Amino acid sequence: MGKPKKPVILITNDDSYRAKGIQALIEALQPYGHLIVVAPSHPQSGMSHAITVNMPLRMEKIEQKENLDYYIVSGTPVDCVKLANNQLFRDNKPDLLVSGINHGANSSSSVVYSGTMAAAIEGCLYEIPSIGFSLLDFSKNPDFTASIQYVRKIAINALENGITPGTCLNVNIPKLPLNEIVGVRICRQNKGVWREEFDKRVDPANREYYWLTGEFYNLEPHSEDTDEWALHHKYVSIVPVQIDMTAYDSIDRLNKWDWKV
Amino acid sequence: MGKPKKPVILITNDDSYRAKGIQALIEALQPYGHLIVVAPSHPQSGMSHAITVNMPLRMEKIEQKENLDYYIVSGTPVDCVKLANNQLFRDNKPDLLVSGINHGANSSSSVVYSGTMAAAIEGCLYEIPSIGFSLLDFSKNPDFTASIQYVRKIAINALENGITPGTCLNVNIPKLPLNEIVGVRICRQNKGVWREEFDKRVDPANREYYWLTGEFYNLEPHSEDTDEWALHHKYVSIVPVQIDMTAYDSIDRLNKWDWKV
Repeated sequence: MGKPKKPVILITNDDSYRAKGIQALIEALQPYGHLIVVAPSHPQSGMSHAITVNMPLRMEKIEQKENLDYYIVSGTPVDCVKLANNQLFRDNKPDLLVSGINHGANSSSSVVYSGTMAAAIEGCLYEIPSIGFSLLDFSKNPDFTASIQYVRKIAINALENGITPGTCLNVNIPKLPLNEIVGVRICRQNKGVWREEFDKRVDPANREYYWLTGEFYNLEPHSEDTDEWALHHKYVSIVPVQIDMTAYDSIDRLNKWDWKV
Repeated sequence: MGKPKKPVILITNDDSYRAKGIQALIEALQPYGHLIVVAPSHPQSGMSHAITVNMPLRMEKIEQKENLDYYIVSGTPVDCVKLANNQLFRDNKPDLLVSGINHGANSSSSVVYSGTMAAAIEGCLYEIPSIGFSLLDFSKNPDFTASIQYVRKIAINALENGITPGTCLNVNIPKLPLNEIVGVRICRQNKGVWREEFDKRVDPANREYYWLTGEFYNLEPHSEDTDEWALHHKYVSIVPVQIDMTAYDSIDRLNKWDWKV
């Protein structure tokens, strides 16, 4: 069997196969490729690059239509990418991996917590051109109309031009109607942090417990080359993300320390 | 109350408070600081930078001695760092965060899967000088004798010299006696990938399931500036890791794409 003419696009997310965001990705890309969806069976927000090592995984095919195969996996977004590559793409790698559309932002340092972006980074480790998409709307039922247009534009660009090996794209989309979005802006990752306020409560057995809540602090709100700036100024932000985390600038300095043990 | 004269060192890991590796960290650093241990109550291998968003967390103090406060948390390594910073370090940040000693390597691209390194990266996001330590020995009861000497050397160096903000250190230690370790080598992250073989089985109800197994492939075994090379040549490897994942080299190229929607 030859490779199908249409590009093969692997789709996953972290909000689970039932999320509206993954349906929006399917709607955006169905005209342009053969879609293989492999999504978590349960929500995986905040799972980052977690993999399931102490439990077995299940994978179930739930739908097969023309140009769409739909699987669910009982694990994390990264588990989905690994299992898809091992079980479904042994001979032909997908031409593109897209993850999302996340319900909520993954800009700035949120990239390290994000299951959506972890799936894209894992795709990148498999040498698949990979993109994570997030919409700045945490609600269950956001309006993905504008997102769908930008997903198409960015995915087709990636299929045509390729993505530099060792990198993937982190795309965030402002919560705005299509005609209010100014355009696309290529950015660097904003310096920002989440600071937690744990909500301390007492359970019916009188034992304390904590709920994680957090607030984002932008450490450089006036830098115009960051993703946060772009999003606040009504742009779709694209940050190219690399899997090499080496801080090359620190190597010389560390070499000057006394290392004799 | 003034700050205690001894440096305050926050200790965590991903193998849980019962792991030998965290005991080795305590043994290494107890003479040099006031230790606050906040460790997961259960093993968290492969949890990467996951945070607990859909469940509450418990924190319990299990021990208090001179220069050692010991807490356990019902979450991930990153939850431990967040909860410690929010509940225990509201007024004074710790002087140093150390995570580990992990039972098994976290060199090369394993940094993205590692709970040990995620805790160090989270410390870095809190602007605490942070180090993750891993020993190349997956067994439950490794010999940490040499590791303890290198933990001391590296931690004291970090306390004295500081670590560049926005970066942390990924330290891997070969499984060798102290006199066979050649020394410390500052390295870059090796290009390498895990390739999975899922072990497919059938459960008693005749349903398929998969166990994740994997093998590491070094994509550049002859590059002498990588952590993998250093470890194979009997060095302790130190990779400075940065939280800015932007692929700066890709920005110009992406700006040339057609972005009109």
